[in-house]
Amino acid sequence: MSAAKQSDDRSGRSLTPMHEDVSAWYGDVVARAELADRGPAKGTMVIRPYGYAIWELLQRQLDDRFKATGHQNAYFPLFIPESYLRREAEHVEGFAPELAVVTHGGGKELDEPLVVRPTSETVIGEMFAKWISSYRDLPILINAWNNVVRWELRPRMFLRTTEFLWQEGHTAHADEADAMAETRRMFDVYDEFARNVAAIPMVRGEKTPGERFAGALRTFTIEGMMRDGKALQSGTSHYLGTNFARAFDITFQDEHNALQHAHTTSWGMSTRMIGAVILAHGDDRGLVLPPRLAPHQVVVVPIGRGDALAGTTAEAERLARRLRERGVRVHVDTRDQSPGFKFNDWELKGVPLRVELGPRDLEAGVVMLAQRVGDDDEDGRARKHRLTPDELVDGVGARLDAYHDLLVARAEAFRADRSATVDDRTTFDAQVAVGFAHALHCGEPACEEAIQERTRATPRCVPTEGPDETGVCIECGRPSAYGRRVVFARAY
Amino acid sequence: MSAAKQSDDRSGRSLTPMHEDVSAWYGDVVARAELADRGPAKGTMVIRPYGYAIWELLQRQLDDRFKATGHQNAYFPLFIPESYLRREAEHVEGFAPELAVVTHGGGKELDEPLVVRPTSETVIGEMFAKWISSYRDLPILINAWNNVVRWELRPRMFLRTTEFLWQEGHTAHADEADAMAETRRMFDVYDEFARNVAAIPMVRGEKTPGERFAGALRTFTIEGMMRDGKALQSGTSHYLGTNFARAFDITFQDEHNALQHAHTTSWGMSTRMIGAVILAHGDDRGLVLPPRLAPHQVVVVPIGRGDALAGTTAEAERLARRLRERGVRVHVDTRDQSPGFKFNDWELKGVPLRVELGPRDLEAGVVMLAQRVGDDDEDGRARKHRLTPDELVDGVGARLDAYHDLLVARAEAFRADRSATVDDRTTFDAQVAVGFAHALHCGEPACEEAIQERTRATPRCVPTEGPDETGVCIECGRPSAYGRRVVFARAY
Repeated sequence: MSAAKQSDDRSGRSLTPMHEDVSAWYGDVVARAELADRGPAKGTMVIRPYGYAIWELLQRQLDDRFKATGHQNAYFPLFIPESYLRREAEHVEGFAPELAVVTHGGGKELDEPLVVRPTSETVIGEMFAKWISSYRDLPILINAWNNVVRWELRPRMFLRTTEFLWQEGHTAHADEADAMAETRRMFDVYDEFARNVAAIPMVRGEKTPGERFAGALRTFTIEGMMRDGKALQSGTSHYLGTNFARAFDITFQDEHNALQHAHTTSWGMSTRMIGAVILAHGDDRGLVLPPRLAPHQVVVVPIGRGDALAGTTAEAERLARRLRERGVRVHVDTRDQSPGFKFNDWELKGVPLRVELGPRDLEAGVVMLAQRVGDDDEDGRARKHRLTPDELVDGVGARLDAYHDLLVARAEAFRADRSATVDDRTTFDAQVAVGFAHALHCGEPACEEAIQERTRATPRCVPTEGPDETGVCIECGRPSAYGRRVVFARAY
Repeated sequence: MSAAKQSDDRSGRSLTPMHEDVSAWYGDVVARAELADRGPAKGTMVIRPYGYAIWELLQRQLDDRFKATGHQNAYFPLFIPESYLRREAEHVEGFAPELAVVTHGGGKELDEPLVVRPTSETVIGEMFAKWISSYRDLPILINAWNNVVRWELRPRMFLRTTEFLWQEGHTAHADEADAMAETRRMFDVYDEFARNVAAIPMVRGEKTPGERFAGALRTFTIEGMMRDGKALQSGTSHYLGTNFARAFDITFQDEHNALQHAHTTSWGMSTRMIGAVILAHGDDRGLVLPPRLAPHQVVVVPIGRGDALAGTTAEAERLARRLRERGVRVHVDTRDQSPGFKFNDWELKGVPLRVELGPRDLEAGVVMLAQRVGDDDEDGRARKHRLTPDELVDGVGARLDAYHDLLVARAEAFRADRSATVDDRTTFDAQVAVGFAHALHCGEPACEEAIQERTRATPRCVPTEGPDETGVCIECGRPSAYGRRVVFARAY
């Protein structure tokens, strides 16, 4: 960007404060941190290089986990014959309203319209049926990274876009026990990834029947709390039973030569996770990136004029090389801009650590280090620490890890503050306006809907961990279901 | 795969010999090496894990080269409003017959149909216009990894499929010199990648006007020779001039505050490259993978029964760990199958090095090593070499590099044998039936068409390197164009 354009787009305006209007704040951050832009077709998104670099880091680290748990990547077609979706009744009912349909190809009207995949259970079911014939072929453990399309009437960048990027895992197993073990394993992988990479502590649990994936018997979810107290579903893992196996004839000969239906699973995480990172960590100054997803973990800003600047720039490059040797992602900002402009810009872009290097620092053999959050002075400005380059280089790994832990702890404290166990409607309604309400519920979909109508809150999940508890439904007074409390919240 | 299914699919039948019917051989290899399967919608392809692992290796190594030359990845939408394509006249003319069109979304007919991207110049042009305002914004160097759709009437796995995976680079520059330097730089990257990673020596050159990308002023191409003597276009780099800048209003203020159109480039390589690898190196036994694209560079086959097998398997795993520490991709084949079955299977799958380890080898402290091609005995079987595990581990890197070089040299010798400088029609027609013909040509599209009609050969390129030469057109006798010979061949 040119200097002129930058001052139009960024320094000229300040961000909408988060507490004033989260939605406007979110839009400002996405645009001004150059994460994404609207695409020309309604509901589509252009992921700009800075946003895409976050996605690449996410992909790499998630993919490593999939491979470590025995999965192989593959690719399945974008176009699915419309009739395929109809083979699983609940599935088509869930997805039909969101489909994009190709009716013309190669200049002709097609005999059968093609659906642009909203998810690939159907086409993968067809392939599994071809590939599987004996119990020796099982399990099949596959993942695919691709783009899917679900028509969105009210699109929001990263959170709900007509097209989005994701991974979809699909596996087939000989029996329920093996398929359920897989469903839980990938649920655990998502939870661990969210905490250890995205620095978002998740509420782990199972969806209530009304909130399950279309065609699943059980859906497990991780739900993060955003800075406005709302929930964001960040990854789901489904046990599909034999529903898709029956619809697509995925059968195998078992050890006794009897024909059996396979049990399948699917699980997905998407570019939505970038929305989660923005909303779980951000503040009035902009993005706050967890270091394991930050394209630049450290930005070095050389300061000075003329010869002095040449000296600090050379030293900054030397320092950057040393940091890179430690495996740190470093950027040296040599733009023709004021230090103040650069500091604001990298704060907006959420860079974890900023190193300043002025002529007097260079003379004294030190650098100044500031951290994006968690170390502010009384005026709310980042404290600057004087360090030797050796101290910086030797300590940078531990410092980034500590910063990651700080983000997790901060998010946990925030969530604890915004969560409550509630047993009456008035408290419930007040609680879901600011955060998560742990309440007993009867489990009836109609009763869930009544709650949603009044409060806009939905059951996010029945937590996997937590004390056994029964009693009466907070809404209708009937006996509670699930044997434990349900987490309700407004959600993205 | 189960034993039963494997014997149905593989050991039961032998491959169609390549010289008998290349097309049938190709289909057999793609299916039986488990590279890909037909998708349910016509012309689509499922890339199976073994094929996708090759793609991932290709992606990673090509992406590293893009980043090393200063490019950043981004993502642009799948759907493009139909009107966008019409803004560049040649572009829409070239792509209109191949488009897939979405007419319905979210249960409604759309006001304006959406095209599924066949390539992204148009939508990226629109975004570049938004992002660029000053000369300081230039150059913009972007790449995108995605899927594109071009309707195919005669699909062939990897070579021509309705949907394929690729990368498309898009850059914008202040002037022609800078844009042409980029066009050539990426042309060089493709050529270097093809030789050093895919082990395919390429003929480098420029397309004749009739063969240019729709909307380009200049198109550079790398053309590989396949085992049947046909050419395969493997990567192209285009200088688009100001065509797209004018169509999408990509303008900037230059240093003197004058408004200028940017000069743009685009360049792409696709899953077609996997087809090139199959056809450039394969033989009657199946795939021959270059080591830098081989999912398994070494397969270790432990041999024996009962306790003896337990011993050789443990030693095989130990050996595999040591090889992995050297950065080698190793697989230990512990399937319940005969050694002979396994040897054939890994030959079919093109694994560069095979290590056999039997009980007597274990006792003697040695392993047996065989190489997929280039080291056969008089009966055409791979020679087995006796090595100590230390010799194997210490020498494996050099051995894989030598094997890579051998594949390049073999392909170069083959190409030299199947290429000729020709100056009369009879020789030309005979030459393009077996390989590449270097001939003088007038440069007239009508004359190119006459040659194609008679011989099925097309001008592949005007080589970038080569002696200056003028004379008369081999077809029509008019004065030759380009100042050098043109390479003609039949092509995939």
